[in-house]
Amino acid sequence: MRTRPLKVALLGCGVVGSEVARIMTTHADDLAARIGAPVELAGVAVRRPSKVREGIDPALITTDATALVKRGDLDVVVEVIGGIEPARTLVTTAFEHGASVVSANKALLAEDGATLYAAAEQHGRDLYFEAAVAGAIPLIRPLRESLAGDKVNRVLGIVNGTTNFILDRMDSSGAGYSEALDEATALGYAEADPTADVEGFDAAAKAAILAGIAFHTRVRLDDVYREGLTEVTAADMASARRMGCTVKLLAICERAADGQSVTARVHPAMIPLSHPLASVREAYNAVFVEAEAAGQLMFYGPGAGGAPTASAVLGDLVAVCRNRLAESTGPGESAYTQLPVSPMGEVVTRYHISLDVADKPGVLAQVATVFAEHGVSIDTVRQQGKDGEASLVVVTHRAPDAALSGTVEALRKLDTVRGVASIMRVEGE
Amino acid sequence: MRTRPLKVALLGCGVVGSEVARIMTTHADDLAARIGAPVELAGVAVRRPSKVREGIDPALITTDATALVKRGDLDVVVEVIGGIEPARTLVTTAFEHGASVVSANKALLAEDGATLYAAAEQHGRDLYFEAAVAGAIPLIRPLRESLAGDKVNRVLGIVNGTTNFILDRMDSSGAGYSEALDEATALGYAEADPTADVEGFDAAAKAAILAGIAFHTRVRLDDVYREGLTEVTAADMASARRMGCTVKLLAICERAADGQSVTARVHPAMIPLSHPLASVREAYNAVFVEAEAAGQLMFYGPGAGGAPTASAVLGDLVAVCRNRLAESTGPGESAYTQLPVSPMGEVVTRYHISLDVADKPGVLAQVATVFAEHGVSIDTVRQQGKDGEASLVVVTHRAPDAALSGTVEALRKLDTVRGVASIMRVEGE
Repeated sequence: MRTRPLKVALLGCGVVGSEVARIMTTHADDLAARIGAPVELAGVAVRRPSKVREGIDPALITTDATALVKRGDLDVVVEVIGGIEPARTLVTTAFEHGASVVSANKALLAEDGATLYAAAEQHGRDLYFEAAVAGAIPLIRPLRESLAGDKVNRVLGIVNGTTNFILDRMDSSGAGYSEALDEATALGYAEADPTADVEGFDAAAKAAILAGIAFHTRVRLDDVYREGLTEVTAADMASARRMGCTVKLLAICERAADGQSVTARVHPAMIPLSHPLASVREAYNAVFVEAEAAGQLMFYGPGAGGAPTASAVLGDLVAVCRNRLAESTGPGESAYTQLPVSPMGEVVTRYHISLDVADKPGVLAQVATVFAEHGVSIDTVRQQGKDGEASLVVVTHRAPDAALSGTVEALRKLDTVRGVASIMRVEGE
Repeated sequence: MRTRPLKVALLGCGVVGSEVARIMTTHADDLAARIGAPVELAGVAVRRPSKVREGIDPALITTDATALVKRGDLDVVVEVIGGIEPARTLVTTAFEHGASVVSANKALLAEDGATLYAAAEQHGRDLYFEAAVAGAIPLIRPLRESLAGDKVNRVLGIVNGTTNFILDRMDSSGAGYSEALDEATALGYAEADPTADVEGFDAAAKAAILAGIAFHTRVRLDDVYREGLTEVTAADMASARRMGCTVKLLAICERAADGQSVTARVHPAMIPLSHPLASVREAYNAVFVEAEAAGQLMFYGPGAGGAPTASAVLGDLVAVCRNRLAESTGPGESAYTQLPVSPMGEVVTRYHISLDVADKPGVLAQVATVFAEHGVSIDTVRQQGKDGEASLVVVTHRAPDAALSGTVEALRKLDTVRGVASIMRVEGE
């Protein structure tokens, strides 16, 4: 074994960073044996230098992250700051000064992964980011390496723990969205400002990363259709139950049937209770991958948290350090298919639509005509009437999303339709 | 991209090999783009050269596998023959002549992995074998790389599709073992001679491979405790149901509580219906991995079949080819912990024991005394009596397997115990 240690700098020392530093210290011998050389924490960039950080030599702490990544003697920079800037500049600067990078930054990778990949390649260094998607669950490496000889057609999963916790609570207790969010916040599953989670931005960033890797093309955050779960009501959840379904916030990346384009989207959807994703509880994540030869694979585990995310970071750290010793690099960007990303209107899916209608004869015929005019075939209709009010619950067969949303627009204009109570896509069949 | 192709020889062209050859042809452009150079099928060693093999140039077919691996111009040898010899000699010869090896051979890796690893290292080549365990499910790479910065404490899973199919049928239809085996055979899930599957040899080989990688030590097939499922009865399955459990053939690899040894075992066990492994149907495989930082991860998918296994082979082929181009190698054997493998007696587990007893007062007291004398604590007892016959069903708390089997031996000697109807371990809680 080489005795000169590999030097690692840590950018950020919050929930994940402090756990990375802790494991690097407590499991130093194991890491050295697995890498073939010891690893040494060479510096830790933080915002608040006065905070006590147990187990970290205070001499390593700095507030000058830029000076740290410019040192020139670093083998690896671990970036767990998050956000676009200063993370992007720090990462590219790290490459320029000869370090490989391990990042957990989904937002940056989804926003501008191409720039990072290019910088890594230009300087002959590695960019690894297993921790950016689904915490501890090995997903990037299986897609990038294990399935490198296969053709992935679909990735479908729960990739945000906060929203899964909220929906699980709504499903199990009948709570409304606000009440479930309050519980998630109280238990530490939701942040003070939950926007990134509940509006689906976090999941959309992960969908962009997964789609790009799965389909060997470039997919950016802006390419991902996104709906959060703030509009999901207790009534939607009850309606899902009546259909033998539950509601999950899903990230779905698909290759079009003709193979000439891909789509990526995040939205709430009803899935059958018999689907394995329906039983993913609390803040867990689970992702289905469908590949031509492999068939259906599922990966499940804790999607967030300091220790699980640190596990993913350290797995990457070992791989990147091995590559440094071998003077090689792992797989870089693979975007050779250059498949375009189609808009949401071209996604083929199913709708569950709940309408408040006038309780009189002929309404169903009118509604059915609108569906037919838009080329949307109806799977089931359930009529309920009471006190002069009536509701129609329609579940469609698969149709392009544009045709489905066009149908809904036309339904809203019918005199006999008093309102569209809810619209939700149905997936997982 | 390099234009000179990498040369790949295929040893074996059965269910898996023919699928590997097919995908190498139909997806040649994708493989080339992902590797950075084209791959060329340079030879295919078979036993029956007269068989028509669609899509394979007959000029590539040979019966002389030894001459093929000695050619000296091969970059990769894909070994999908199975069995110990001639596979072992062919693989080591391939290394000696400069090729890297991708193997799906669980028996050989479990029997003599150390020899193969040593030959690979001596000649600076790669030995990859994702396909040897759980078919298409990425498991070796996640354990070897994704979790390389973590400490795995437990691997628990269903790694044999044939036995899972049999047990699933017994559970869903109430069929006995023989009847379920017949159905598995008729549907092609069981081979004409099902011994390797139903006696647990196949699962034990996989357990040895998983334990070795998970704990960074050497575990051979002989180190794995093994019980097949031929003794599992419809009554056992019904008894499991009454406990809210089902029966699965599990491979379980554990680090001892003191961290100083490991165990590996394969046997039927009752697991609660609420455990995710309980809902693994038909011939699917699923493996739980528990690691210190990552927590509980699960990997699920098709555990066998030509196309899924080929997917795993081809993922390895891409990785090994990339390494050849970079003149590097991936991770080799990691056995630095040298943790010993403890015998089954030291495994801590729970027993479900069903006794036929005399229907008279004092029997339970006698039985309970035997448990106490062996230091085994009882969790629950259920007494059933009819027509002078009676049965006692005892579920224990966790205790060393030696104490549990000692208890059963002593129970057999009691006058009031007419017979031990069944013994099964209880796992997954």
